[in-house]
Amino acid sequence: MSQIGVIMGSDSDIKIMEDALTVLRQFELDFEVKISSAHRTLERTVEWVKDFEAQGGKLIIAAAGLAAHLPGVVAGSTILPVIGVPLSSGAMEGIDALYSIVQMPPGIPVATVGIGAARNAALLAVQILAVQDEVLSNKVKNYRAQMLKDIEAKDEALQLRLSKGI
Amino acid sequence: MSQIGVIMGSDSDIKIMEDALTVLRQFELDFEVKISSAHRTLERTVEWVKDFEAQGGKLIIAAAGLAAHLPGVVAGSTILPVIGVPLSSGAMEGIDALYSIVQMPPGIPVATVGIGAARNAALLAVQILAVQDEVLSNKVKNYRAQMLKDIEAKDEALQLRLSKGI
Amino acid sequence: MSQIGVIMGSDSDIKIMEDALTVLRQFELDFEVKISSAHRTLERTVEWVKDFEAQGGKLIIAAAGLAAHLPGVVAGSTILPVIGVPLSSGAMEGIDALYSIVQMPPGIPVATVGIGAARNAALLAVQILAVQDEVLSNKVKNYRAQMLKDIEAKDEALQLRLSKGI
Amino acid sequence: MSQIGVIMGSDSDIKIMEDALTVLRQFELDFEVKISSAHRTLERTVEWVKDFEAQGGKLIIAAAGLAAHLPGVVAGSTILPVIGVPLSSGAMEGIDALYSIVQMPPGIPVATVGIGAARNAALLAVQILAVQDEVLSNKVKNYRAQMLKDIEAKDEALQLRLSKGI
Amino acid sequence: MSQIGVIMGSDSDIKIMEDALTVLRQFELDFEVKISSAHRTLERTVEWVKDFEAQGGKLIIAAAGLAAHLPGVVAGSTILPVIGVPLSSGAMEGIDALYSIVQMPPGIPVATVGIGAARNAALLAVQILAVQDEVLSNKVKNYRAQMLKDIEAKDEALQLRLSKGI
Amino acid sequence: MSQIGVIMGSDSDIKIMEDALTVLRQFELDFEVKISSAHRTLERTVEWVKDFEAQGGKLIIAAAGLAAHLPGVVAGSTILPVIGVPLSSGAMEGIDALYSIVQMPPGIPVATVGIGAARNAALLAVQILAVQDEVLSNKVKNYRAQMLKDIEAKDEALQLRLSKGI
Amino acid sequence: MSQIGVIMGSDSDIKIMEDALTVLRQFELDFEVKISSAHRTLERTVEWVKDFEAQGGKLIIAAAGLAAHLPGVVAGSTILPVIGVPLSSGAMEGIDALYSIVQMPPGIPVATVGIGAARNAALLAVQILAVQDEVLSNKVKNYRAQMLKDIEAKDEALQLRLSKGI
Amino acid sequence: MSQIGVIMGSDSDIKIMEDALTVLRQFELDFEVKISSAHRTLERTVEWVKDFEAQGGKLIIAAAGLAAHLPGVVAGSTILPVIGVPLSSGAMEGIDALYSIVQMPPGIPVATVGIGAARNAALLAVQILAVQDEVLSNKVKNYRAQMLKDIEAKDEALQLRLSKGI
Repeated sequence: MSQIGVIMGSDSDIKIMEDALTVLRQFELDFEVKISSAHRTLERTVEWVKDFEAQGGKLIIAAAGLAAHLPGVVAGSTILPVIGVPLSSGAMEGIDALYSIVQMPPGIPVATVGIGAARNAALLAVQILAVQDEVLSNKVKNYRAQMLKDIEAKDEALQLRLSKGI
Repeated sequence: MSQIGVIMGSDSDIKIMEDALTVLRQFELDFEVKISSAHRTLERTVEWVKDFEAQGGKLIIAAAGLAAHLPGVVAGSTILPVIGVPLSSGAMEGIDALYSIVQMPPGIPVATVGIGAARNAALLAVQILAVQDEVLSNKVKNYRAQMLKDIEAKDEALQLRLSKGI
Repeated sequence: MSQIGVIMGSDSDIKIMEDALTVLRQFELDFEVKISSAHRTLERTVEWVKDFEAQGGKLIIAAAGLAAHLPGVVAGSTILPVIGVPLSSGAMEGIDALYSIVQMPPGIPVATVGIGAARNAALLAVQILAVQDEVLSNKVKNYRAQMLKDIEAKDEALQLRLSKGI
Repeated sequence: MSQIGVIMGSDSDIKIMEDALTVLRQFELDFEVKISSAHRTLERTVEWVKDFEAQGGKLIIAAAGLAAHLPGVVAGSTILPVIGVPLSSGAMEGIDALYSIVQMPPGIPVATVGIGAARNAALLAVQILAVQDEVLSNKVKNYRAQMLKDIEAKDEALQLRLSKGI
Repeated sequence: MSQIGVIMGSDSDIKIMEDALTVLRQFELDFEVKISSAHRTLERTVEWVKDFEAQGGKLIIAAAGLAAHLPGVVAGSTILPVIGVPLSSGAMEGIDALYSIVQMPPGIPVATVGIGAARNAALLAVQILAVQDEVLSNKVKNYRAQMLKDIEAKDEALQLRLSKGI
Repeated sequence: MSQIGVIMGSDSDIKIMEDALTVLRQFELDFEVKISSAHRTLERTVEWVKDFEAQGGKLIIAAAGLAAHLPGVVAGSTILPVIGVPLSSGAMEGIDALYSIVQMPPGIPVATVGIGAARNAALLAVQILAVQDEVLSNKVKNYRAQMLKDIEAKDEALQLRLSKGI
Repeated sequence: MSQIGVIMGSDSDIKIMEDALTVLRQFELDFEVKISSAHRTLERTVEWVKDFEAQGGKLIIAAAGLAAHLPGVVAGSTILPVIGVPLSSGAMEGIDALYSIVQMPPGIPVATVGIGAARNAALLAVQILAVQDEVLSNKVKNYRAQMLKDIEAKDEALQLRLSKGI
Repeated sequence: MSQIGVIMGSDSDIKIMEDALTVLRQFELDFEVKISSAHRTLERTVEWVKDFEAQGGKLIIAAAGLAAHLPGVVAGSTILPVIGVPLSSGAMEGIDALYSIVQMPPGIPVATVGIGAARNAALLAVQILAVQDEVLSNKVKNYRAQMLKDIEAKDEALQLRLSKGI
């Protein structure tokens, strides 16, 4: 049984959302992935959301491009927290998706991350679950510590390169 | 039994959408109005749409502001033509609603009109029904003729005013 | 005699609009295509629109980029429903065309679809004609059912791929 | 017979365009004003433009809001220079009108001024006519000299005010 | 001891954020409010965040306008989930704040809600805490049910009004 | 002696502006081209503009990208009509240049054309000079007639292609 | 003799720029204010800038709205640092001014602050002069300390108010 | 000991910021470069800023993309002038970074340059230090003179090319 559901409107979205799955695997969290559209398969989407909640799922990441209604439709069908990922697609390069996801009307929030920010969506999911889970919470601290080390290493590499005048 | 359904997400939207009802009354078309949200009352919305289609409804006008998912959700629940009206609301003054309505993904179109363009939504509905209805078609021609006369009258009034140097 | 007219401002637009023609052929609808500009050949455009309406045409799809006046000019010359397709062209990538098409002044609506959404324009045309045509209406239902199956198939393929850890 | 035609889509536009008329009067130029729409009275508009050109008119100022097609339609109907004035109207406050006017496709230019810049439209008209008219050209020079004096006077007033610590 | 921290950059922000406090009170959640700036009092802000996390706080709502760095700075100082509320302020009416909050770089997510969406920020906080809290989870369900009833009541009122031709 | 001056801020702009020169050559108009910056060589620019006006130049086309001040600075230094061409350059792809050129303050207009619309700038220049020049005026009419023929030819080619089912 | 020059295009700009003067007075810095336009009085502007630099001025704050060329023109006429303040004016509410000021081409930078941010412009000027002036540098530190105290006081007032349930 | 600090959030930013380093080397100014993030390594960033100021650093150039908080965070941690460089990154191509940097709240200014304008950031730094340094001031004058010569040379090359009809 999965804690996290990852739903997207089209199978082409998986290319970007793979970054989210990588993070979830890194934190050893159970997740399931669903392709279902807010428009072409509305009822199937609502059904999957309700089943996921009923089976003990804890939160849902929903990704979509263009007039990105999927996160909002999912959020309207569950009381689980829904993280929305606007995807860049077509002429507006994700601005349309961002506005369609973040500007939710009062009553039904979607936790929106940046355009194409699949990795951040997964990290936000991890942080939400870590609120009540000390093991996970420690993993997040380690992840952050690793990011700090990565930046320090890159900084050192740059200092070396600059000192050599390369 | 109504030919045209007018649905909006909030009862505050009726202020703008009243313009559409006025046009529909002018053309003596049967319509019904529904307040139902794409998020807060998703299933109720889908049900109403399906009932409306089943009972012989011919097209739906859907109005919403902010992340305006209502027209898209309606369009995903029926094969009737759906006319979307983006409403100005909040800091983005309707740009968010416009993008959320017009940028529908392939497969489920929404016929979008301008921000707050309730009157044009109704006229578009009339023109669609007039495709197969000669009486209605003649009414549209008269309506257009009247618009022409209105402009001519306003032009004459202006000429008079300018000639008098007012 | 064609039910649907497809007009565009430049022959380079046919690359995008081919998607619309494909859909119209799929639904076995008669259509004709016209290249004519709202600015360079204004009178020729108006004439074609009037002829098309006079000969029993039922609706018009008009596509244009930049300051896209073609759909509005067409809509001002006929009482048939006009579907406008904003095309991405030049530095603004279609935002200019979208605003030029959707923000029509009161009295003359254009049913606007998304930027480059040729396929949706055609589907909207089909749905409008299906209002009074049960055979066509059933075809739309089948088309929708097929989209549902496509998504299910893609979802299954993804589940398989994920279960194999690919 | 007028040298300059000023056309606008609605009689409500005259409030802003009055600034242009004031400038034209100041430079003692003959002008005529016309209310006619690019959509509601397309043929009447084209006819007026052609008549204006045939009767020796020299240039046209065209003002419109929303999906502002009037300047483009006018420009497509004459070889006279057309100055376009985007007007602020509705939720987009003139951005829609600006894009609809300035982004003309190759072949038919519109000389666009700023949003609501009626005064500048008239000054541009004056400068265009002054190209071949030394008397007018001197008036423009005087107008500019006056603007210089106005700024100097305002600067002096400010210096005085600041020196007095008000 | 509070579960939820609500931080904002200026005391003028409380006018909007009061909506969030109302929701938190409605759900009987402990919260504390802090005014502290990401720029003028950076260290004080970081200190408060660390203290709040150390004392068992569970999540933080951070609201800011203009170049809204507060939510990001908070998110960089804690592993608790951070909900960001862009506030409308100055000429850009919150678009600047939205972009400054939602477009966080990889590694440090902020759960962004709509411009001025204080109520949704609080509801998101409630939903996040409800993941592991059945009592709270039931309250959310009741809240949703109440929203449904509200819409039904408004719809009925409208039907009545329309039927009376008012 | 040249009637038309074409000034641009950088020699890299000539790639786009070549389209304007082609049109000017086509209409057999004398022109001169100048590279000079509104910022790096402000005085040299002002000097060239004043010399050009003094020597009987009739109008100036000024092209620039980014914060495109060149057209405005030129317009402030002459009473000749100035046509501004916003060029796409850098991250904003010409929107910055468009706003910097078209939004001129009251008193000093710039006749703005679309982003990158070098050809339209030249055609506008031709139309302005044609106001008082019947030979040129006839050439414009021929140019328009040729555009009409081009569209007709392209339309015929398309009809042929479609009829053959290619 | 003034260290800081404050120039603006119109005397109406003083309303906003008064905030900058207040800060400069607070830090006891000599300044002079000039009204001069980049377009209507270009040469007078350039002259003032050159004189100001020649007489030992140290930096210039330049404020303008619309197509705000003043800061760029000033920056092109001096090697002193130029701080640009975009002012909100007209339909675009300062976005046009921001782009016109910040997007300067390579070679001539303008230090841009936020839309209408007169106070920040002055503080930036103070910080620049404080680089080599320890007395001024200490004043800036005190100013910052005062801001910290102000926030703490406001926070305390809020805590009090909330604890009293007002 | 360095006068100028150059800080950026990621080592990938060095590609753009290399232009700034080139200018600083050209003017023979001591500088140091730091990679540190406003979010992932907030405390390390603040520490470096404070150390840099304490050791006599004179100004800081801070570059970042997306929700670019680095310049603001740096500015909140020092009274040295901070020059912010918005970098183009992701779907919004630097507009997000521009708004996140330039729209700083009252009290803590950032001297913002154009998107990706690393060279201008360095030149602004040079001009600020030149305020009190006559040698540096003369170097800036020479740099400007060289830019003038470059433009003249490019202009001459163009004149030659055009005269030869190439």
